[in-house]
Amino acid sequence: MNQHSDIRLSLPSKGRLGQAALDFLAACGLEVEKPNPRQYAARIPALPRLTVLFQRPGDIVVSVRDGSVDFGITGMDVVAERQGDNGTVLVLHNALNFGHCRLCLAVPEEWDTVHTMADLAVYSRALDRPLRVATKFLRLTSDFLGRHAITPYTLINVEGTLEVAPAIGYADLIADLVSSGQTLRDNRLRPLTDGTILHSQAGLIANRAALKSRPEVLTVARTLLEFTEAHLRAVEHLGVFANIRGESPQAIAQQIFAQDTLGGLQGPTISPVIVRDGNPNWYAVHIVVRRERLFQAVAELRAIGGSGVVVAPVTYIFEEEPARYRAMMEALEEGA
Amino acid sequence: MNQHSDIRLSLPSKGRLGQAALDFLAACGLEVEKPNPRQYAARIPALPRLTVLFQRPGDIVVSVRDGSVDFGITGMDVVAERQGDNGTVLVLHNALNFGHCRLCLAVPEEWDTVHTMADLAVYSRALDRPLRVATKFLRLTSDFLGRHAITPYTLINVEGTLEVAPAIGYADLIADLVSSGQTLRDNRLRPLTDGTILHSQAGLIANRAALKSRPEVLTVARTLLEFTEAHLRAVEHLGVFANIRGESPQAIAQQIFAQDTLGGLQGPTISPVIVRDGNPNWYAVHIVVRRERLFQAVAELRAIGGSGVVVAPVTYIFEEEPARYRAMMEALEEGA
Amino acid sequence: MNQHSDIRLSLPSKGRLGQAALDFLAACGLEVEKPNPRQYAARIPALPRLTVLFQRPGDIVVSVRDGSVDFGITGMDVVAERQGDNGTVLVLHNALNFGHCRLCLAVPEEWDTVHTMADLAVYSRALDRPLRVATKFLRLTSDFLGRHAITPYTLINVEGTLEVAPAIGYADLIADLVSSGQTLRDNRLRPLTDGTILHSQAGLIANRAALKSRPEVLTVARTLLEFTEAHLRAVEHLGVFANIRGESPQAIAQQIFAQDTLGGLQGPTISPVIVRDGNPNWYAVHIVVRRERLFQAVAELRAIGGSGVVVAPVTYIFEEEPARYRAMMEALEEGA
Amino acid sequence: MNQHSDIRLSLPSKGRLGQAALDFLAACGLEVEKPNPRQYAARIPALPRLTVLFQRPGDIVVSVRDGSVDFGITGMDVVAERQGDNGTVLVLHNALNFGHCRLCLAVPEEWDTVHTMADLAVYSRALDRPLRVATKFLRLTSDFLGRHAITPYTLINVEGTLEVAPAIGYADLIADLVSSGQTLRDNRLRPLTDGTILHSQAGLIANRAALKSRPEVLTVARTLLEFTEAHLRAVEHLGVFANIRGESPQAIAQQIFAQDTLGGLQGPTISPVIVRDGNPNWYAVHIVVRRERLFQAVAELRAIGGSGVVVAPVTYIFEEEPARYRAMMEALEEGA
Amino acid sequence: MNQHSDIRLSLPSKGRLGQAALDFLAACGLEVEKPNPRQYAARIPALPRLTVLFQRPGDIVVSVRDGSVDFGITGMDVVAERQGDNGTVLVLHNALNFGHCRLCLAVPEEWDTVHTMADLAVYSRALDRPLRVATKFLRLTSDFLGRHAITPYTLINVEGTLEVAPAIGYADLIADLVSSGQTLRDNRLRPLTDGTILHSQAGLIANRAALKSRPEVLTVARTLLEFTEAHLRAVEHLGVFANIRGESPQAIAQQIFAQDTLGGLQGPTISPVIVRDGNPNWYAVHIVVRRERLFQAVAELRAIGGSGVVVAPVTYIFEEEPARYRAMMEALEEGA
Amino acid sequence: MNQHSDIRLSLPSKGRLGQAALDFLAACGLEVEKPNPRQYAARIPALPRLTVLFQRPGDIVVSVRDGSVDFGITGMDVVAERQGDNGTVLVLHNALNFGHCRLCLAVPEEWDTVHTMADLAVYSRALDRPLRVATKFLRLTSDFLGRHAITPYTLINVEGTLEVAPAIGYADLIADLVSSGQTLRDNRLRPLTDGTILHSQAGLIANRAALKSRPEVLTVARTLLEFTEAHLRAVEHLGVFANIRGESPQAIAQQIFAQDTLGGLQGPTISPVIVRDGNPNWYAVHIVVRRERLFQAVAELRAIGGSGVVVAPVTYIFEEEPARYRAMMEALEEGA
Repeated sequence: MNQHSDIRLSLPSKGRLGQAALDFLAACGLEVEKPNPRQYAARIPALPRLTVLFQRPGDIVVSVRDGSVDFGITGMDVVAERQGDNGTVLVLHNALNFGHCRLCLAVPEEWDTVHTMADLAVYSRALDRPLRVATKFLRLTSDFLGRHAITPYTLINVEGTLEVAPAIGYADLIADLVSSGQTLRDNRLRPLTDGTILHSQAGLIANRAALKSRPEVLTVARTLLEFTEAHLRAVEHLGVFANIRGESPQAIAQQIFAQDTLGGLQGPTISPVIVRDGNPNWYAVHIVVRRERLFQAVAELRAIGGSGVVVAPVTYIFEEEPARYRAMMEALEEGA
Repeated sequence: MNQHSDIRLSLPSKGRLGQAALDFLAACGLEVEKPNPRQYAARIPALPRLTVLFQRPGDIVVSVRDGSVDFGITGMDVVAERQGDNGTVLVLHNALNFGHCRLCLAVPEEWDTVHTMADLAVYSRALDRPLRVATKFLRLTSDFLGRHAITPYTLINVEGTLEVAPAIGYADLIADLVSSGQTLRDNRLRPLTDGTILHSQAGLIANRAALKSRPEVLTVARTLLEFTEAHLRAVEHLGVFANIRGESPQAIAQQIFAQDTLGGLQGPTISPVIVRDGNPNWYAVHIVVRRERLFQAVAELRAIGGSGVVVAPVTYIFEEEPARYRAMMEALEEGA
Repeated sequence: MNQHSDIRLSLPSKGRLGQAALDFLAACGLEVEKPNPRQYAARIPALPRLTVLFQRPGDIVVSVRDGSVDFGITGMDVVAERQGDNGTVLVLHNALNFGHCRLCLAVPEEWDTVHTMADLAVYSRALDRPLRVATKFLRLTSDFLGRHAITPYTLINVEGTLEVAPAIGYADLIADLVSSGQTLRDNRLRPLTDGTILHSQAGLIANRAALKSRPEVLTVARTLLEFTEAHLRAVEHLGVFANIRGESPQAIAQQIFAQDTLGGLQGPTISPVIVRDGNPNWYAVHIVVRRERLFQAVAELRAIGGSGVVVAPVTYIFEEEPARYRAMMEALEEGA
Repeated sequence: MNQHSDIRLSLPSKGRLGQAALDFLAACGLEVEKPNPRQYAARIPALPRLTVLFQRPGDIVVSVRDGSVDFGITGMDVVAERQGDNGTVLVLHNALNFGHCRLCLAVPEEWDTVHTMADLAVYSRALDRPLRVATKFLRLTSDFLGRHAITPYTLINVEGTLEVAPAIGYADLIADLVSSGQTLRDNRLRPLTDGTILHSQAGLIANRAALKSRPEVLTVARTLLEFTEAHLRAVEHLGVFANIRGESPQAIAQQIFAQDTLGGLQGPTISPVIVRDGNPNWYAVHIVVRRERLFQAVAELRAIGGSGVVVAPVTYIFEEEPARYRAMMEALEEGA
Repeated sequence: MNQHSDIRLSLPSKGRLGQAALDFLAACGLEVEKPNPRQYAARIPALPRLTVLFQRPGDIVVSVRDGSVDFGITGMDVVAERQGDNGTVLVLHNALNFGHCRLCLAVPEEWDTVHTMADLAVYSRALDRPLRVATKFLRLTSDFLGRHAITPYTLINVEGTLEVAPAIGYADLIADLVSSGQTLRDNRLRPLTDGTILHSQAGLIANRAALKSRPEVLTVARTLLEFTEAHLRAVEHLGVFANIRGESPQAIAQQIFAQDTLGGLQGPTISPVIVRDGNPNWYAVHIVVRRERLFQAVAELRAIGGSGVVVAPVTYIFEEEPARYRAMMEALEEGA
Repeated sequence: MNQHSDIRLSLPSKGRLGQAALDFLAACGLEVEKPNPRQYAARIPALPRLTVLFQRPGDIVVSVRDGSVDFGITGMDVVAERQGDNGTVLVLHNALNFGHCRLCLAVPEEWDTVHTMADLAVYSRALDRPLRVATKFLRLTSDFLGRHAITPYTLINVEGTLEVAPAIGYADLIADLVSSGQTLRDNRLRPLTDGTILHSQAGLIANRAALKSRPEVLTVARTLLEFTEAHLRAVEHLGVFANIRGESPQAIAQQIFAQDTLGGLQGPTISPVIVRDGNPNWYAVHIVVRRERLFQAVAELRAIGGSGVVVAPVTYIFEEEPARYRAMMEALEEGA
């Protein structure tokens, strides 16, 4: 059942998550070529053996679980809700740094006495009927309510917009995905301060059996992990070139090592700069710094006489064999 | 639970069905004023006590069933799937003449041997595993497969687009709503010739308990039925005025009665026309004809000397107390 | 200055009001033909001597006031704000039944103690600085604050969205146009219960001097008033045809006169209906009823034996010389 | 060749003309049901044997000419350009009252000495090379230039926007379709005062052989002509009801006959009105007037004591057998 | 008044300027995260203490002036018009290199005798009434007319599109923002050759008092200036790597110094290249050149034997402490 | 004729090809500034003497051929169809790597016996009439059919969508541009396996006479070729920096030379890295590798002890004088 000879990766078929997944892969150097908006299949020229499919976020988890696709990029929220307990869905990467949201419990603004889960437990006990919670995340919500000893409750599975359920009256509160919180405010709902069930972002999942039985699937897994890791590391760094006057490369290096932020990945590359007046003491320093420390690094370079600080983008930073690849190999062993 | 003092009507919140419902009510003289696209509630000025809500088609049935809304206009497909067995959902009108579609079983085009349900039964028996059917209509599909003795089968509930399920491989065939059939063809699927599970169009449903216990809800039910019936009858008719020369109104009427199509609702209204030359034998005839017979009616009027045939639109045709209102009253009695 | 030999009507150039004005004129039988979205001038084929211009609502009042255009359709809010005191702008019609909104004072939701103008006066007196009100309606707001003895205050004229002014902090409250109230709620503002400065809808204005000095302008004024009045009356009525059995037209009329709603504009038109069985006592009654009383009228017709009630639309209802035309003529006399 | 058993009507596939054709047919009571925007075929429920196809305006003429479709609605401009000389394309209706435009010669604004065709002839003779005219209407432009003795000239067939050809320099002037003239002005071109080659609007064409050999095609031709003619007549008229006091129907009719505009199609229908005070001299008059004379008609009715003037729309006005149908039958005879 | 504890930056709320401001900040590494199109506030993750607000361009100046926001990015045109004379608005950067336009006087094309301000003065003197100028820039236009001795004049403040004012007749000429000039040409207006009142582009402004009293505001000012300056310099440069054969780094440097364009920011970085054949005379040169001189630089490198010229982007170029930061500090001193 | 003093480049005016051409030029550093969507002319700031025009793809070839424009970027398909035989159109670059498509013959899916050109010849011979082929590429299709000895045939030139021609019946098969093939599948057409007439992508063409007679045109040609070549080479490469420990630069180089993929353009640049512990054996290696070999290159670097592999983008790679420039110069000589 579900036999296919190609290798398959499912992406979210539309919406913000779908576009973000395409943008993410392109930024990783794995651009998706979708010849036609109406086709459900596409290609990644850099991974010619791969077929790209487009499905709803939740269907992706189901397809990876039942083996009809080998890899999926989707929200960790639906992975947590739908991956099942039998280990067929392996999470290769749980933080692709897009699609951030959180699943949380929200109550009508006018519930003046309910701000925490403890308040909710009190409120619930005072009701003479089960608390009704509208949600599309039955399993996660149920676990969370259980952990907070909210009982009894009824979960109401709604097709469309959850946020109107309390106003219309077919639920008391909701458990829904929130990004900016504006939709909740528009509907006069308020998240509970400790009501966050899950923090989610996009992740990469795979079918365990496919990884174990098909070497070409394992090869694609490695390529996906190498490029996503190298890209995610690269977006946090910048290359910095500066000219510095000093007695020698070693002397300049000592000054650099004395600074807080500078130091690069391992040590600065230092090359001579030939200047018009023949002064032999000019050197070019090349380091890589974290993007968020750039301003500080520039200040430190200036402090030790650096000038002409040129900053350049980096596309990938490959470290040793990526940790997540090792983790995957171990997980495959375990399940053996 | 679910107590509300207003009277509530839920409409489909978006898509073709949503717009068609708004257009239909406007054509009935019950225009919906939605002050703001982001609000979930609206008003019908002609029914000032009514609150209009917007929900997904399936959620409408659930809300009417649990009593959080009193009336709903939605597809009869989701009504059949979700109304439940306990009679809380009363179908007031099952043919509002928009939202036509059918739920049907469709198989991959390349299944050369499967064109009928009988073929499918053969195909299924030859499989060494259950037939997998992707659908959002679990109950209706299950009943239908049962009636055709297709067994064993697994129903797969898909979040997004069903049509790709056979191509991706997580289902063998699908049971989905079809209007033009183009989407099936695009996905190389073919409906079975006798695989139509349900013909559907939009209908009007109500909560039985609300009708029985709240007289103001019953009054609104009557108004809704009167206007929708009078409108649906009107769109099928046209008013026709013609000038005819004849000895007397009675003589003209006899000629009219002798024709196939003419005759109007009860009999022609005949009034004198005063012409310039004083000829006293000109009369104006006013009848109402079915739109589809108009051309024939004009031919018959010409045949008996009619000229200057002027056709005018009609907005409503009210008959005696509408049959569907009587049916509702009887259904309420039964459930007493 | 501002001499032009054509006759000019300015309409709102865009937005909801602009579209509504075009729809309104089309419904009046005065469809505007705009050959090209980029042209600022258009024509009304039914009024061939008229040039239609498109301007912002407020600019329309200014142009009518300075005589560069002769007629304008725009919101009564900007008319009130900008028409000036010297009577050059004559209001021909102040209720064209579209573009409804109200200008009102709104305060931040968290001002718990301020719900009325009286509360605001108290609040203002407790401030050690002038109350700051953001608005585009300086004159109307100033008059209103004066009438409610709110003092001192500063009016802040904002280019863009007023609603954010209190949140950003450059105003304490706002005076703005409100239709559904959703924008206020989104920005956590609340209108004062008696803070409505003006109820507004679209109106028709004209330049007094043009009406007095150019007979062709006066002719167009009459045409505009006749068609708008006849249209506005028509949308509130429907034609009703019913067949009734009775001894004589007079007998039927007596039954009709005895009913509450029936009666038509002056009296029913009653014509004989010739039926198949020769019964001479069938008559067709034709009356005109108010749309909002239709349901009641149908019930009354049924009560006196009416059947086959056919309702048809009406396009115009012309009464005697329209009251607003007389009012205009008188206003022109006064100003002589 | 081109055999097909259905009856086919081609409509313009997109743009203003395409939408206008759909609107026109709907207004005629022949609404087109296009189940899916991507399908090239559709149906008209009122003409169940007809297949509706969508093609570019010029391709429609070619398809009707070669018999692959039976009927086409398209611009008379492309009909004139492409219908050929052998009479296979029969024009059933040449004025459907939409898609108005004209084909005309336009020169650069800075050609100060060229305003008429005569000026152009002078200009052309002074050139030492052929005049270059960019156009998509080779045949019509060639005929027109020939009739005005402009010679020598070269016609340049452009794929895209003609208007830029003179500015880019690959043509001296253009012959193009003009509706509002704004595009010409934007490109600093000016039409010659007598340079209009053709006034065009949408028309209905048919394949002569299909009309002659297939009776069911002839039947559809009649239906199309009846409904389009009855609709086009109806949009120019309105029904008018007024109450008038008079000695008798005849007396009232005499007053009406004495008026300029009144008189209706043949004579007024006059029915008694029963009024509350029993006055027997009230009558209801029903006439049909031309829309453009409505205002005058109302004035005349008021002049003879009419009141309560109610105006109602008409959908069709069927006269005797339509003239264009007779013309078609004659043309078919001729070609026999 | 206007107290706020966060630090605030206002950006243009929509249109071309709004999008360009977001793009500019993103290119500077200061990406704005706007969680929801309907929210008026956003964040810049790289400047976590900053609140980003969205206002109309002119309102931004007013808010910075009154201190309700600390920083603004908006057009220098509205800054010049609205900043006032009291020095509360400090211009930190007046040339962010987007939003280019100019404010200029434009007259109807048919004013054949008016091409310069001197011509306009003559034209104006010949009028027997004040010249009427429609504009939204009352102050700048007034100053400019004064400087050119145009008197008397009336300024007309228009809500909407200025360009139609001369055609409608309520102004003689306009003073408006022009980017491509197409809108003027469309409306048959022509700018005066010396009628440019102001050349404008986007700038960065700040509230003087906030800078002086709140050190954290000063810190943000420095960060904004550093990153915008380093980005603006970077977009004009490219990094160039080339391999050159030479006796020694010094010899190569001499060749480079002899070229016109080459030379980099201070001097080339020269590193050895190890080639397969062991030739020790290959060196890699790394320089930074202005983008507009790239082609010339490549030619010069080729001329001295350079090959394999690889060009790479730069993200920032940080020089010594930016001049505009020093200018700001001095301006703050002055105002002390 | 066609004299112009500026230098002109025509780009496709709209659609996918138009946008791709703008994107391509921007990526080459030759960004097009189009001030206004309605203008037909634009500028490239980096090539200030150039005027950019926008035309339909086929019109571009015609304009370059007749000399009204000097350069064109358009599809090689229309170049092949329309360039003519007299050598006036010179192809400067035939593979700009966007706008890929192929022109191919496609037949109805139900033609079971026709899969190759040979099958088509058989099919055609069995017809008793010419094969009818709908196409917009008359010349290329005619040549291709001739080469395959398909005869007799008729070419049908269609204005709009070719794909419906076989279904409607006015052609038997089509020759059309295909990118993904989805449109063919939607219309139930199938390409012949050896029916590809032409593989096409965008190219750069020029007018031979302009290149020969105007030196400034030749200069622009060189600039265009240099930048497009340097860009096209750059997109296929990446800069790679890695730290490696080794005895000496030479020792490291030997290791690198021993690897498959590594080696860079000529040889690695090797600079010392100063590390904290004073170990003198660390070096930084800078090479350029093909993008498609990146993963392999990283593996090889790791294999020889490389760490901290940083990958950076390159904007241009300029080689010696580009081959296509030399080819152009030779072609100009030939034509002398």
